[in-house]
Amino acid sequence: MRARHKPWADDYLQEHPEYVILNPLDKKGKWRDVFGNDQPIHLEIGAGKGRFVMGMAKQHPDINFIAIELAKSIIVSAVEKAVEEQPKNVKLLNFDASDLRDLFEDHEIDQIYLNFSDPWPKNRHEKRRLTYHTFLTQYQQVLKSDSKLVFKTDNRGLFEYSLMSFSHFNMLIDDVSLDLHEDNDPLNVMTEYEEKFSKRGHPIYRVEASFKS
Amino acid sequence: MRARHKPWADDYLQEHPEYVILNPLDKKGKWRDVFGNDQPIHLEIGAGKGRFVMGMAKQHPDINFIAIELAKSIIVSAVEKAVEEQPKNVKLLNFDASDLRDLFEDHEIDQIYLNFSDPWPKNRHEKRRLTYHTFLTQYQQVLKSDSKLVFKTDNRGLFEYSLMSFSHFNMLIDDVSLDLHEDNDPLNVMTEYEEKFSKRGHPIYRVEASFKS
Ligand SMILES: C[S@@+](CC[C@H](N)C(=O)[O-])C[C@H]1O[C@@H](n2cnc3c(N)ncnc32)[C@H](O)[C@@H]1O
Ligand SMILES: C[S@@+](CC[C@H](N)C(=O)[O-])C[C@H]1O[C@@H](n2cnc3c(N)ncnc32)[C@H](O)[C@@H]1O
Repeated sequence: MRARHKPWADDYLQEHPEYVILNPLDKKGKWRDVFGNDQPIHLEIGAGKGRFVMGMAKQHPDINFIAIELAKSIIVSAVEKAVEEQPKNVKLLNFDASDLRDLFEDHEIDQIYLNFSDPWPKNRHEKRRLTYHTFLTQYQQVLKSDSKLVFKTDNRGLFEYSLMSFSHFNMLIDDVSLDLHEDNDPLNVMTEYEEKFSKRGHPIYRVEASFKS
Repeated sequence: MRARHKPWADDYLQEHPEYVILNPLDKKGKWRDVFGNDQPIHLEIGAGKGRFVMGMAKQHPDINFIAIELAKSIIVSAVEKAVEEQPKNVKLLNFDASDLRDLFEDHEIDQIYLNFSDPWPKNRHEKRRLTYHTFLTQYQQVLKSDSKLVFKTDNRGLFEYSLMSFSHFNMLIDDVSLDLHEDNDPLNVMTEYEEKFSKRGHPIYRVEASFKS
């Protein structure tokens, strides 16, 4: 996701500690305290400009959402949305989600979303794909048992790869759609990329997979 | 697959015992003798007019192929192709493949193909889908261990269902394509349905899945 350099971004993130968790490593094992309640916690990795997490948070006030996004110049857009809509159940992390175990205690998370993750199409970059087995190991560890990983993309290669990767990791494919928008699910919350690529006529793929306990 | 009633079909099948196995139940455990050699045996279920099995047999002379098709008026077209091309490695069965264990001994088969199987879209017909777990149990039994089931279809619902069914049966997804014709595999052998539906612009889905030993 591209964005212009935004010199004011740093200050802006600092000014909104009610949404932006500035020292997330300190919160490991204490995320229920951060939200101040015992609701389940859902995590989005690579959240972009935050359209998905904001839409989900509105649709599910009984769930807490944490959205992680690496790029400062992109996550500011999510913070702007939060400042406008003032959700009680959203926290935003400007962080590199390369090892979730630094951020979360075992079984602290109830569901993980990957939306339109970077495809890394070259074989030699396989390890960077967020559905590579080293990432699956992390997800399994921070998730409660029998919890789900929910993944949407328009990228055929990454989706095919991910189905094989889940299968070889002994995960269960609980639900799959090879043309999500044809299914007309009124509860589907679109991401920025989803809107863009579905308008170009790409089918949107979606899978829910769980880790066997 | 539709075909006109063909009153001459019965006689025609009887006249070609070199391709049509008229008493297949007697061959259980003896299929290597039927072919007269020890080549691996691949099985196609619901073979239609035989284009796939004939093409595969030509491409792989070192493999023996058995094609099963329920409808007499359809399989005659496959027999006509065989009479013309005279393959040494094809046998055709006009038979209901509802229990493969009547036809094959345990581990007698090396690979199974399902091509454009009837989708049975209604939930109450789930049991008739050739990827329902009762069929998978049969396939596992007649296949050698670690052998593959290879499935192609344009039917999105059946393909989605099958991925979930394989996963819940603890099968491994070894390979998957969500747009086979985009992949331009020069070795792909098209079926009659495949040609028809890809011409209409449907993506063709393909999966190779194996039974864990
Ligand atoms: C292709 S964009 C998709 C954005 C959004 N999910 C959507 O669907 O519109 C992928 C996003 O993942 C972010 N990203 C990539 N690697 C990351 C990592 N290790 N940690 C956090 N975010 C990451 C990128 O900065 C980018 O914004
Ligand atoms: C939709 S057609 C596909 C034909 C061919 N495989 C193709 O791709 O062009 C499905 C075929 O499966 C056959 N079939 C359905 N159930 C069967 C069964 N229990 N045993 C054998 N053949 C069956 C039907 O008669 C029909 O010819």
